[in-house]
Amino acid sequence: MPNQFDPPSGTRDFLAAELTKRERAFGVLRSVFASYGFEPLQTPAFERVDVLLGKYGDEADKLVFKILRRGEHEASGEADLALRYDMTVPLARVAAAYGSQLPTPYKRYAMGSVWRADRPGRGRFREFTQCDIDTLGSTSPLADAEILCAHHDAMTALGLTDFRILVNSRQVLSGLLEVFAVPPELGPGVLTALDKLDKMSPADVISELTSRGLDEQAAGELVAAMTAEDASERIRTALKPSETGMAGLEELEPAARAGRRADSGRPDRVHAADGARPQLPTPARSGSSWRPAYRGSIGAGGRYDHLIAQLGGPDVPATGSSLGIERILTLLPDDAGGRQGTLDLAVTVLADDLAGPSFALAARARAAGLRASVYLGASGKLGKQLRWAADQGARWCLIYGNAEREAGTVTVRDLLSAEQEAVPEAEVADYLACRAGSADG
Amino acid sequence: MPNQFDPPSGTRDFLAAELTKRERAFGVLRSVFASYGFEPLQTPAFERVDVLLGKYGDEADKLVFKILRRGEHEASGEADLALRYDMTVPLARVAAAYGSQLPTPYKRYAMGSVWRADRPGRGRFREFTQCDIDTLGSTSPLADAEILCAHHDAMTALGLTDFRILVNSRQVLSGLLEVFAVPPELGPGVLTALDKLDKMSPADVISELTSRGLDEQAAGELVAAMTAEDASERIRTALKPSETGMAGLEELEPAARAGRRADSGRPDRVHAADGARPQLPTPARSGSSWRPAYRGSIGAGGRYDHLIAQLGGPDVPATGSSLGIERILTLLPDDAGGRQGTLDLAVTVLADDLAGPSFALAARARAAGLRASVYLGASGKLGKQLRWAADQGARWCLIYGNAEREAGTVTVRDLLSAEQEAVPEAEVADYLACRAGSADG
Repeated sequence: MPNQFDPPSGTRDFLAAELTKRERAFGVLRSVFASYGFEPLQTPAFERVDVLLGKYGDEADKLVFKILRRGEHEASGEADLALRYDMTVPLARVAAAYGSQLPTPYKRYAMGSVWRADRPGRGRFREFTQCDIDTLGSTSPLADAEILCAHHDAMTALGLTDFRILVNSRQVLSGLLEVFAVPPELGPGVLTALDKLDKMSPADVISELTSRGLDEQAAGELVAAMTAEDASERIRTALKPSETGMAGLEELEPAARAGRRADSGRPDRVHAADGARPQLPTPARSGSSWRPAYRGSIGAGGRYDHLIAQLGGPDVPATGSSLGIERILTLLPDDAGGRQGTLDLAVTVLADDLAGPSFALAARARAAGLRASVYLGASGKLGKQLRWAADQGARWCLIYGNAEREAGTVTVRDLLSAEQEAVPEAEVADYLACRAGSADG
Repeated sequence: MPNQFDPPSGTRDFLAAELTKRERAFGVLRSVFASYGFEPLQTPAFERVDVLLGKYGDEADKLVFKILRRGEHEASGEADLALRYDMTVPLARVAAAYGSQLPTPYKRYAMGSVWRADRPGRGRFREFTQCDIDTLGSTSPLADAEILCAHHDAMTALGLTDFRILVNSRQVLSGLLEVFAVPPELGPGVLTALDKLDKMSPADVISELTSRGLDEQAAGELVAAMTAEDASERIRTALKPSETGMAGLEELEPAARAGRRADSGRPDRVHAADGARPQLPTPARSGSSWRPAYRGSIGAGGRYDHLIAQLGGPDVPATGSSLGIERILTLLPDDAGGRQGTLDLAVTVLADDLAGPSFALAARARAAGLRASVYLGASGKLGKQLRWAADQGARWCLIYGNAEREAGTVTVRDLLSAEQEAVPEAEVADYLACRAGSADG
């Protein structure tokens, strides 16, 4: 039952714990991309409707959030702007707008919100973060290989270990249809059905294949080959009579080889034409493409020459990857419980005239690199202030009352052990910085 | 003349250099706020129209970007959502939605885009970043003082030095109107006019005051007092007969004192009731308020009890600051020219069969903390690849050709001095990490 204070349907409020986890992951990704020489790009949240609409077909256009014209034009009910649907259309516009100012090749990453008026469901949002890396202006298969390596390193740096990267190519798929004698007109439907082997049982896929018009024997053989233990070997052998298929296997070698090299610790993680899983035959993909998987797809990548031109940009060769960052975030462990660890120090204010010295103590702790918060409530009682300190998840409480003022000390209370120590006022920042350092280690 | 590939009017594309500068500044701010125990909060880009509209008056409502309903409802021309206009309305909603899950007091920062359909002009955008810190749930003047200190430290950490913080209070302003015998009905207009002393000449302000109905002598005296060398002293003396004015001076003491303490290196930077500049009497501000200034206003802050309730949230006391981050960014120095410094290493690919080792060299350099990019172009010529390396702003170029492969070395070329050195392949990552370290220092 939605509450009037909930965020709009399909969107989320991120409070501290979750936002911190997200920002940390985004920071890791930025630094991996930068280590490959990808530059950041940020475009506006909205584009003009003519830039955005008509690029991805009618179904996608229905999912675009359109912005009403303003002022005297509002009554027209027309839209002149629309929220970003993905990062690729803005990239095409930027490539057209800044062409010669951009380096060649232009390697950029983009990380930010996109908006789609999809029906919200578990794991599906109307506002979500997209994270893309793309290289414009290089036809080299090394550009594909580099993207795959960067995508691989990004997932590894986030702490994912059990993923696989399935590499494939459009030509391998054509060869596959050829050697299994699939009638050409059934080709796209057959690939779409085979692509569901990740999520559906072999029997269900076979029945989808036959319902799409493939005869039962061919459907059975295809699925058997692709789900076999030694699927990769069987497919490679089966492809031998097909010139197209063999050319495809050759085409994806550089990316697969680079991926395996990047992954030298785990040589079995990058699979060239693994069971020849169809690997998303979007019409735009040409050449090799890949899909990292961990209990389902967690990204997709590949070459998409000419797409930038179709999207209104210049006709430049292009290759890229999109990390399924929202799904990846759900696979990462949550940070340790609650507010724990967000604050090093809580500082008491035990009387009005002690506020000044307490502020000064907090300021000195901050200058020493610690996170410190001063009591802002109405109670002058130590017990209440200690409870506040614990609620904040602070590691220590600095107690500074009249006794401490007279002695020239600060009482440092360890909120885990409840042990207290009197530390000379002048030494307290160094003392804590030192203890914080050893607690981290 | 706007180009069809420009971003929408009033919005900006941020390419690498500018975006890097912005992100660096945002990172500095996050870490200052965290050091005070403020937590991050991120709300959706849009809210339901009923949450957003009718909160700031008709003029503000006209500036809201409204989102058209979708599907069968699109033809109605009605809006059900609207882009975030500021960070305060979403904060009020969050306070209502998560009340007891939030710590008490709730100290949060929010940094993100807001959208206003203002007429774009120099330094005025339709999409811009807002950066707010707020404390909900504390009536203590220490909460105001803490916000002021955090705002102060944030500006200092960004590298601003020549700013002043003008602290004021509603009661001081009332006292001021009282002792200069301004008729109560003229009060708000007089304060609005005096607030322009930052931007307009004293003579122009006097003429605005008289056009608002103040007699010429009173207008002249007021402006003379407020623009005098010793304005602060003169106003303090003048306020003595006013009980309200004296109470106001007392009320703003904690914030001013805390600010001066935070600013112990520059004791003249925080000014209590400096020339009693009116300091924007928005109807919502109660208690003390402040405005950091550096050639104009670069932020504003103060207490705003009851505003959260007016905005649809619970009736909690509140105080906060908004940093004028877009203006502050224009005051910060640009990073050193062009792409310089975004890449440590450019790695050649001088033949197809050398791509593998070149990829491996780049991977080893990245593992050692360096940013490395591999040549993705079509030329096998060293000269062309060296030009590419220089265009990328790389510090070094790693040359790995057949001669190097035979010798088991890598040629490291310093792109500043054009000096070259042969380094054993196994040592190259360490060698570069070491040189990069000493080049930084």
